[in-house]
Amino acid sequence: MSATRSLRLASRPTGRVRPENFEIREEPLPEPGDGEFRVKLEYVSLDPAMRGWLSAARSYVPPVEIGEVMRAFSCGTVEASNNPDFPVGQAVAGRFGVRHHAISDGTGVLKVDTNLAPLPRWVGGLGMPGWTAYFGLLEVGRPKEGETVVVSAASGAVGSLVGQIAKLKGCRVVGIAGGPRKCAYVTDELGFDACVDYKTGSLADDLRTACPDGIDVYFENVGGEILDIVLDQMNDFGRIPFCGMISAMNATEPQPGPYNFRKILTSRLTVRGFIVFDFADRIPEALDALGRWHGEGRLKMREDIREGGLEAFADTLNELYSGGNNGKLVLAL
Amino acid sequence: MSATRSLRLASRPTGRVRPENFEIREEPLPEPGDGEFRVKLEYVSLDPAMRGWLSAARSYVPPVEIGEVMRAFSCGTVEASNNPDFPVGQAVAGRFGVRHHAISDGTGVLKVDTNLAPLPRWVGGLGMPGWTAYFGLLEVGRPKEGETVVVSAASGAVGSLVGQIAKLKGCRVVGIAGGPRKCAYVTDELGFDACVDYKTGSLADDLRTACPDGIDVYFENVGGEILDIVLDQMNDFGRIPFCGMISAMNATEPQPGPYNFRKILTSRLTVRGFIVFDFADRIPEALDALGRWHGEGRLKMREDIREGGLEAFADTLNELYSGGNNGKLVLAL
Repeated sequence: MSATRSLRLASRPTGRVRPENFEIREEPLPEPGDGEFRVKLEYVSLDPAMRGWLSAARSYVPPVEIGEVMRAFSCGTVEASNNPDFPVGQAVAGRFGVRHHAISDGTGVLKVDTNLAPLPRWVGGLGMPGWTAYFGLLEVGRPKEGETVVVSAASGAVGSLVGQIAKLKGCRVVGIAGGPRKCAYVTDELGFDACVDYKTGSLADDLRTACPDGIDVYFENVGGEILDIVLDQMNDFGRIPFCGMISAMNATEPQPGPYNFRKILTSRLTVRGFIVFDFADRIPEALDALGRWHGEGRLKMREDIREGGLEAFADTLNELYSGGNNGKLVLAL
Repeated sequence: MSATRSLRLASRPTGRVRPENFEIREEPLPEPGDGEFRVKLEYVSLDPAMRGWLSAARSYVPPVEIGEVMRAFSCGTVEASNNPDFPVGQAVAGRFGVRHHAISDGTGVLKVDTNLAPLPRWVGGLGMPGWTAYFGLLEVGRPKEGETVVVSAASGAVGSLVGQIAKLKGCRVVGIAGGPRKCAYVTDELGFDACVDYKTGSLADDLRTACPDGIDVYFENVGGEILDIVLDQMNDFGRIPFCGMISAMNATEPQPGPYNFRKILTSRLTVRGFIVFDFADRIPEALDALGRWHGEGRLKMREDIREGGLEAFADTLNELYSGGNNGKLVLAL
């Protein structure tokens, strides 16, 4: 084999991503230089933030440029190496992009142990989504024992861990998810105290029933109407780690902020945006805790692995915004 | 004299407050009981928060009930006393309400020294608005030397002090105010580095010029479009002490939150609501600092004292929401 393939941005999407926004390019197989190694990638992580990376608007990271390989966390195995720290056969995860092979000098690359957890989990619950849950909940949300924590997108990669970590910290934990199957997963498998279905049309009432003492921490993944309903039920001095806004990711018109914005004032809430990269130097701490809890069977993780390779990237990514996934969405190469 | 008068809520306003929402009641002059004293009130503080106190909606304090005396900070002089701590002739400030005389046992009442500052200033820059500026800026905004601080309603009771305190802390300070006269006051009298006029239609550009290094702290008094424009120019890890939302106080329809709400996430901002009562046990600290700076001539304070007594309450209050005041708005009785 002397060729490889990569997925590159061909045009900026308007609204939902379409397959024609990407081009699959056939390329010569790259050879590692001094101190470098080549990874054969096996799984690509699909994350809600990806839609933002495709917009030209200034954000916390520069946009993916036209012609560039689509940015992604992915994982695989070293298959050629001039770097003794990363020998052939070593499993690794990192920001390798959506491609079949990548060259790296090891910067920012995580060596992973597939005896502790299967490979795709290292771009899931033990990867960026896991670190996001860990720091967002504990450092930004700062839940105290006995408080009520609500998390939206509760069956998703980040939400499922936020709730489980909050349970480990002695909180009452209520998820918000779409449909009875996801809600059952959140309570029966993940052990949340309750999960309310935002699709029933009675979210406000259902949430109030599930949170009789109000809400102290709301881990925000979705925005839109759900945020407004939650804001209304926040307790004084509540905290809102603001992690994502799935509802607005594909919007083509400006979306208004919450109508209950003033509740931030009257209830003296703290809304704080964060991204996991702000905690980059503390990732070993997150990995240590997540790995330990996972090893003890106290953190359940589930991947939703899709086939179809590079060609399926756009359609698979869109499932994140319509809630079509069940667990951490991963594309197999 | 054996009669007095009070202003009581007659009906809840819809939109702007109208005189007919209040009733002026003639009452017997109350006599102080054991441990109590009677204050002859001379000045009533008019504060933006008052409109919120008149709404039935749950907020940080219970609403003023129909038939109740309108809640207000006011100040005056003790004229009859059975309390040795508050002798006749003592000047005092407190939450006495909109009335000519009040009975108190001293709880929550501040003894003030009219040699240090004229009486109405003790419900202004040395009263609640001053404490609000002090804690909101220093405890919530946490500006660092060299950072850029922006404050809206910059010529107002709170804003004027926020900016001056930020200057004392070594920040670049930019005000937002309505009209050239207020802007000139803010720069020429109060010493802000710049003040931009939100009425010109070029606020975004003017603000960008005035804040070449972006905005680190935005002390939020107004909400609405101004908040959206400021959000767009906030630096990463900026802080927004959320003190008020004048623009929405008289709204009869739900008002959307900022369209740039997602900027909180992408720039990892912290938006934190606060009210001065949360810092009640630290008011001596604020008074000490404000009094010292004021005594040294480093904090300028200005009152806009209106005549007309109780009858003028509603119309005078409305000026706060249209920007008709110049300095701390106070009603003389």
